[in-house]
Amino acid sequence: MKFATVHTEHGFRVVATKANGYVDLGPGDVGSLLAGPGLPSAADGEVLQIEPALFAPVIPNPGKIICVGLNYRTHITEMGRVLPTHPTLFAKYPEALIGPHETLVLPPESDAVDWEAELAVVIGRSVRRADRATAEAAIAGYTVMNDVTLRDWQFRTREWLQGKTWEATTPLGPCLVTPDELSPDAVISCAVDGEIVQRSTIADLLFDAADLVSYISTILTLNPGDVIATGTTGGVGHARTPARYLQDGQTVVTRVEGIGEMVTPVRRAP
Amino acid sequence: MKFATVHTEHGFRVVATKANGYVDLGPGDVGSLLAGPGLPSAADGEVLQIEPALFAPVIPNPGKIICVGLNYRTHITEMGRVLPTHPTLFAKYPEALIGPHETLVLPPESDAVDWEAELAVVIGRSVRRADRATAEAAIAGYTVMNDVTLRDWQFRTREWLQGKTWEATTPLGPCLVTPDELSPDAVISCAVDGEIVQRSTIADLLFDAADLVSYISTILTLNPGDVIATGTTGGVGHARTPARYLQDGQTVVTRVEGIGEMVTPVRRAP
Repeated sequence: MKFATVHTEHGFRVVATKANGYVDLGPGDVGSLLAGPGLPSAADGEVLQIEPALFAPVIPNPGKIICVGLNYRTHITEMGRVLPTHPTLFAKYPEALIGPHETLVLPPESDAVDWEAELAVVIGRSVRRADRATAEAAIAGYTVMNDVTLRDWQFRTREWLQGKTWEATTPLGPCLVTPDELSPDAVISCAVDGEIVQRSTIADLLFDAADLVSYISTILTLNPGDVIATGTTGGVGHARTPARYLQDGQTVVTRVEGIGEMVTPVRRAP
Repeated sequence: MKFATVHTEHGFRVVATKANGYVDLGPGDVGSLLAGPGLPSAADGEVLQIEPALFAPVIPNPGKIICVGLNYRTHITEMGRVLPTHPTLFAKYPEALIGPHETLVLPPESDAVDWEAELAVVIGRSVRRADRATAEAAIAGYTVMNDVTLRDWQFRTREWLQGKTWEATTPLGPCLVTPDELSPDAVISCAVDGEIVQRSTIADLLFDAADLVSYISTILTLNPGDVIATGTTGGVGHARTPARYLQDGQTVVTRVEGIGEMVTPVRRAP
């Protein structure tokens, strides 16, 4: 099944995504549902149409967003690097999130805003020091993140955080899919104005979702609604010659097969 | 004034710290008070005695904990480094926090748990892109953090997060003091079993509290109850020859003059 979070005048509502529209599941967001009663196993009712602009980040306020660097095997190898023994982890605060069709406003403080298409894991139950099987069972589902990064701020100092957590720059969505709906070799891609700039398959992940949940849960408890962004593959703008960054008027499409796509208009702040 | 958060059977309560004890201010914690009605300007009533073990992290669940690296001028210079132009920022999740007198249990996964005494800033009102004066006015007060770090995990990869956010390793407290009670050259220190291992004054901070609030608020909104740990000075165990790490049975005292001290017993997990 697929679930999304929608803005309304009276706060968030959860919807189930159907082939021909959406079924309303009531007030709350996908994160609060995971923290409370859990996701329903069926959704019947009137099928509604919902404007793309109304979709919120699928988890609007995660307790934790934990991001992974250097995690696509082919990309690491082609860069001439050795495969790492441990995942590289960094953080993003919830203030960074925007909806899956919301405009990305380029901050006036940066001239180097870059794309990073990622598969994101959403936690469904609390786990600490989980083995692989327990980790796998703790995954509520998957979504898509574009880990948009201000390269100039990322590399101001040796820690990446300040380039990674800029307010209102990270699209998350469009929906959460339950694990049964995600193929182990789903294609992940990012396109800028129709040009495919990143393309890989999640089978190329060095540390897969269960590895990451297990590893991170050694460090601290993962809770329902926590989000793990699993890293990006080759093709980011910063690594190109010459480097390319997002420009006013462009459109970014971030897509994972079986989950869906986020369409992000890019605008320079006035 | 000084405020603290106390565990009770019925949840947290806020107390005001007096010379001879504590005055109960009702249910909630210092963070929820900041996010709601704000801190009271007076506290009168019956003076209570409270056991140290009952003190919670002064902000038990901050929306954000943002930590600063390399921020004591003398320490940077003595290491032969050039003073940085921008603060180095990294994150810690709220799961890392423990109370100011709670036992630090050394995780079985690490043999390199180290101390880092820090002055912490607590935000009192929401700010974005704040100039220095606005930043200063947004500071509710100050507290003490020991940014306890698992050096082996910190240096597993090039990002520090995993060594910085281990569950239940970071004492925060004992209280929040309002800005008028903190001297600009307050002494900060850390002692292990009575031996002073770190000692400096907050006058040596390269980026002071207002600088940090202004800088970070450029990146994202700071909200009431958010915590900024301002960095540590020389004397950490990892930089010694031979390196020294925390051992079972030791006691760490982390102190900032004018705020108070946290007394942390250290125990190896059974």
